[in-house]
Amino acid sequence: MMQKRGFPKAEFQQRVAKAQARMAKVGLAALLLTTETEVRYFTGFLTRFWESPSRPWFLIVPASGDPIAVIPAIGGVLMGQSWITDIRTWLSPNPEDEGIGLLSEALCEVAENGNVGLPMGPESYLRLPLAEYERLKSLTPCNFVSDQDIVADLRAVKSQAEIAKIKASCDVAARAFAKVPEWAAEGMGLDQVFRQFQSSCLLEGAEFLAYLSGAAEQGGYGDVISPAGPKPLATGDVLMLDTGVVLDGYFCDYDRNYSVGMPSDAVRSAHARLIEASDTAFSCAKPGVTAADLYHAMDGVLTGGQGGGDAGRLGHGLGMQLTEGLSLIPQDQTVLTAGMVITLEPGIEVSAGKVMVHEENVVITETGAEYLSPRMDAEIPRIG
Amino acid sequence: MMQKRGFPKAEFQQRVAKAQARMAKVGLAALLLTTETEVRYFTGFLTRFWESPSRPWFLIVPASGDPIAVIPAIGGVLMGQSWITDIRTWLSPNPEDEGIGLLSEALCEVAENGNVGLPMGPESYLRLPLAEYERLKSLTPCNFVSDQDIVADLRAVKSQAEIAKIKASCDVAARAFAKVPEWAAEGMGLDQVFRQFQSSCLLEGAEFLAYLSGAAEQGGYGDVISPAGPKPLATGDVLMLDTGVVLDGYFCDYDRNYSVGMPSDAVRSAHARLIEASDTAFSCAKPGVTAADLYHAMDGVLTGGQGGGDAGRLGHGLGMQLTEGLSLIPQDQTVLTAGMVITLEPGIEVSAGKVMVHEENVVITETGAEYLSPRMDAEIPRIG
Repeated sequence: MMQKRGFPKAEFQQRVAKAQARMAKVGLAALLLTTETEVRYFTGFLTRFWESPSRPWFLIVPASGDPIAVIPAIGGVLMGQSWITDIRTWLSPNPEDEGIGLLSEALCEVAENGNVGLPMGPESYLRLPLAEYERLKSLTPCNFVSDQDIVADLRAVKSQAEIAKIKASCDVAARAFAKVPEWAAEGMGLDQVFRQFQSSCLLEGAEFLAYLSGAAEQGGYGDVISPAGPKPLATGDVLMLDTGVVLDGYFCDYDRNYSVGMPSDAVRSAHARLIEASDTAFSCAKPGVTAADLYHAMDGVLTGGQGGGDAGRLGHGLGMQLTEGLSLIPQDQTVLTAGMVITLEPGIEVSAGKVMVHEENVVITETGAEYLSPRMDAEIPRIG
Repeated sequence: MMQKRGFPKAEFQQRVAKAQARMAKVGLAALLLTTETEVRYFTGFLTRFWESPSRPWFLIVPASGDPIAVIPAIGGVLMGQSWITDIRTWLSPNPEDEGIGLLSEALCEVAENGNVGLPMGPESYLRLPLAEYERLKSLTPCNFVSDQDIVADLRAVKSQAEIAKIKASCDVAARAFAKVPEWAAEGMGLDQVFRQFQSSCLLEGAEFLAYLSGAAEQGGYGDVISPAGPKPLATGDVLMLDTGVVLDGYFCDYDRNYSVGMPSDAVRSAHARLIEASDTAFSCAKPGVTAADLYHAMDGVLTGGQGGGDAGRLGHGLGMQLTEGLSLIPQDQTVLTAGMVITLEPGIEVSAGKVMVHEENVVITETGAEYLSPRMDAEIPRIG
């Protein structure tokens, strides 16, 4: 059911080489990385242990040579199974020195008093207490500067192996979505639907479900981020489930809508319009087109070009995170290139305060795009 | 199966009042909070949407009066259902101004040029790109300083309502752990065990599983954070499952070990020693005792006081996060008080490179402690 875990060493070496080429251009002596996805991108280090915030983790990508991992001892065995050979550990937690001494030594070794790039752009964060960051700055002669989005830019373009992992994740969700009408029924609480759907994804092969949102309300829903309550499904509800299944560290992120009983004309027509919007964006999507172009293609179908909607965008990048990189908004002039994986996520107001949202996952190819999620038909599926 | 969601308004008001009393003492004009748990602690805002890193979220706790939420429009409906009335939204993502303009205005209103406290201590992080943080600093006359651990200290002592939620989460895991011997069997891949266990927790009432780790190896395991592979369970394996079930935003975090087939004398004895260690810590645990005292109580049983082990600690705080607050280590002199919820997590070396880890969840009471997880017996449970 699952493909081979991880990637060959050559893939990590290519990622490092590409980063180093860009680092040379902008004068960075090293990258310092602290988050799960940043560390995993260059090492393959995969664990759910990041859920615990107690220990910081560090990866240094030097201007030349292989990365250096500076990590808590509890991760030593697992990191030792990766391609990384320079692994320096400390016994953590240690309030007297939470790895900062070891890290500053390593940075001095590779960067001396040069520029150390940290991801500082959109969606980035420093997974390190601010007090520790100040301490680090005081202990090293390096300058901490922006990585100029080197890591984000590299991650935005996926390899064939990465695309295969996202596809596998989409396939798991597709099997689970297809079975929803087999077990969901009028009278079942939405909280129970959420449990059952997650269980179904697991039994179809998901490693875990990092994300599930949804709603079930009459003729559309008011909100797409609320947790599920016990209110039972009722005839006339539109049930929406939007999931981030994870397989080997790669996400899918798409949703499906279901009509409980016969859909109203308004719901039927809204669903068809959503599909028309994602179909339209799909047919435009190819290298050279911008994120803004796809926004306008969909918004033309949805609102005749008037824009709006609280979601704030009509799609986004996807990969090691549920959402990453570009946004389908008028202001995002990112140019699509082959290997980018994005979501097409049109939303429409069905009536005052009631919306419906549809989402597909696609990969940009040399000549256009391919669906990773199975393209939805115009007709909304039915429960009951 | 689930208790009433959330907390009464009075509980949030008490949390705010306690924070404001401490803020007055240390001269803070406001707190600025950016992470899921910090925002939820004062508002009740509960959603899995934080999984998407694309949009920042802000909560201001002023020196007096109610908190102000400065959030993306997509969260407006849900935040509107909380007790917070001052909710300011912007359409996000917006690369031209990702809420920083709105936030700086609000901070100027409540803090003028005073001190604004940010969590900067252990386990904290700023969920905001560093470039945006610099922009915020340039736009406001406020001083951004440490919150002096006000938020972490408040969160460390749980209310009865919070304890009930952690207990409910422990109960779900307990039912799932009890059923493992009914479905796990020699020959089943560890990855399949992980899927089945998560599914079982969901069907027992979990909202989701934020964490699952484990291992299955002969006579103990080398590592407790590796992802599961396809290797089938074999006679002589010790299977360990360690889970963070989430119910209404509160975690349990405990594990169980199982012997596949008859346990060896070494495994049987190691398990009994682990239980002796957690029993010993449990019997010491009461207000006035320190985190270090519990460490030494367990370490005395486990190693005769020699310490060691890559995990780095023998337990930790627990609540809205899988791990939070104190660590059971020699350096942590935190004094236990009634309402603290902690894990007792002894580990022992069974043979060279092979460990076993056991974990229970307990709450400190006025006179001692109570188990939230069902205390494990000395005898290791068997599969097959």
